Amino acid sequence: MTFELTILGSNSATPAYGRNQTSQVLNINEKLYLIDCGEGTQHQLLKYNIKSSRIKYIFISHLHGDHYLGLIGLISSMHLIGRKEELTLFGPPELKEIIDLHLRYSDTKLRYPLIFNAVQPFEEQVILENEDVSVRSFPLDHRIPCTGFRFDERPRLAKINIQAVKAHAVPTECLSLLKQGIDCVSDDGKVYKSSEFTYPPPSTRSYAFCSDTLDSGKYHDSIKGVSLLYHEATFLNDLLLRAAETYHTTALQAGIIAEKVLAKKLLIGHFSARYRNLEPMVDECRSVFQNSFLALEGTTYSID
Amino acid sequence: MTFELTILGSNSATPAYGRNQTSQVLNINEKLYLIDCGEGTQHQLLKYNIKSSRIKYIFISHLHGDHYLGLIGLISSMHLIGRKEELTLFGPPELKEIIDLHLRYSDTKLRYPLIFNAVQPFEEQVILENEDVSVRSFPLDHRIPCTGFRFDERPRLAKINIQAVKAHAVPTECLSLLKQGIDCVSDDGKVYKSSEFTYPPPSTRSYAFCSDTLDSGKYHDSIKGVSLLYHEATFLNDLLLRAAETYHTTALQAGIIAEKVLAKKLLIGHFSARYRNLEPMVDECRSVFQNSFLALEGTTYSID
Repeated sequence: MTFELTILGSNSATPAYGRNQTSQVLNINEKLYLIDCGEGTQHQLLKYNIKSSRIKYIFISHLHGDHYLGLIGLISSMHLIGRKEELTLFGPPELKEIIDLHLRYSDTKLRYPLIFNAVQPFEEQVILENEDVSVRSFPLDHRIPCTGFRFDERPRLAKINIQAVKAHAVPTECLSLLKQGIDCVSDDGKVYKSSEFTYPPPSTRSYAFCSDTLDSGKYHDSIKGVSLLYHEATFLNDLLLRAAETYHTTALQAGIIAEKVLAKKLLIGHFSARYRNLEPMVDECRSVFQNSFLALEGTTYSID
Repeated sequence: MTFELTILGSNSATPAYGRNQTSQVLNINEKLYLIDCGEGTQHQLLKYNIKSSRIKYIFISHLHGDHYLGLIGLISSMHLIGRKEELTLFGPPELKEIIDLHLRYSDTKLRYPLIFNAVQPFEEQVILENEDVSVRSFPLDHRIPCTGFRFDERPRLAKINIQAVKAHAVPTECLSLLKQGIDCVSDDGKVYKSSEFTYPPPSTRSYAFCSDTLDSGKYHDSIKGVSLLYHEATFLNDLLLRAAETYHTTALQAGIIAEKVLAKKLLIGHFSARYRNLEPMVDECRSVFQNSFLALEGTTYSID
């Protein structure tokens, strides 16, 4: 199953050096999940040849402009180019009011169903479950209410050990249960253990997105053991105080968090416009967490 | 005095073929007047190396997204990069509510004074007069309330005919009046006629912006004799019905309007995303109004 992340923008606050503001698109089994939507996201989708019609879900972390000001343009363009399919949007409760105001004053009636789901900012919650993935939101620690999102691949089925099944003449009606890891009792009372007739399923993959946050520790449990952690790293660690004042994280802190939560891989982004050269940021991360990378626009990162 | 227009975007509805949505910047005596502000306008300013700090005034024609969705990002970025100077904004009354909502939910207190002037959509009015220019708004005929803007250079002073002034020993205190075209009476009752002691001032220049409108004729008086007319031309004339249904103009209609109102020069824009090649549009205009040009992004048009 495809599970990969493409960065559309990873700058903070203002665009700079051709770097756009936060937006990224997660491809899970060929369905697209857009996460945050800074101004110009629809331009970035065009630039990287990603069809907006493939986006099924949009997640907005918070209402700072660099994370959502491209949303209304995107949903308007979807309407104008003839979208008919439902679009499901997750975001702060107040986002609905902002969208409705625009639709009212621009006299727009969307030609497709836009389903809005308010994300509660102060508690972790499961916000979406479908056949591919389960998505949780969790509170971050920012100047305004802000949530992270964690995408966990649904447990995959075990693979049948055909040789063993044949050798023990396991009834066909048991196979579905065994694949799900459930032991099966046949009509004549015989027990077939899943562990004896299957190979263990591949471990599930996960992705966590921490957009804007102070390193306060309160969300660390929510991102434990994640396969790929995207974490903001607005500043280098020499600006630790500035990071704290503005409710942001430094590159060094992001590395320490990745290490602490046992993430497999770290991707940093939300770079301050003061940095033209980003290499020192990833170097700082790697001093504590080797498997760190820069979130670079137009780059796709496979989640393993 | 500088009087020139730079196009930042001239596409309609959605961005396409690298063409951005409506925005343009008028340089009048080295002060910048931004007209409309589609999504991505701040990116276009960066691209064309136009400092947002030089923008003194912003004019928004109406609340369709392709004309204003870049505004909140731009005013936020001005705040983030430390603007202190007042910014004066003219636009539909409802625009204030949209801006206030964003500032409230993003918990932003702008560090510079943002002066909002509501433009009444149903009557022509003078909305700004300063030492360089007089600006009028006038109603266009669109699906939602929409205004055009006309910028008229202030009458320039006549030039003194030094030879004549010396020959007739005109008192120094008369010169200021004579330059303004006013006759002067000296203390001893002698009359000095302005027309006899000055060369006539150069004629004043003007620019009119007609963003989105049906060709209904109701605004034609407002754009009479303008030096440069920007007029939308969303479609070619074979889509005349489509233009009427959507309250837009065709290229041919724009040419006819320019001819009728005795404009000196016509610039067309707001091109539908269906047209990759724009040459047929300007050809259509030129069939009725020879001095027609395409509004091309990044191009500066001098107003003569």
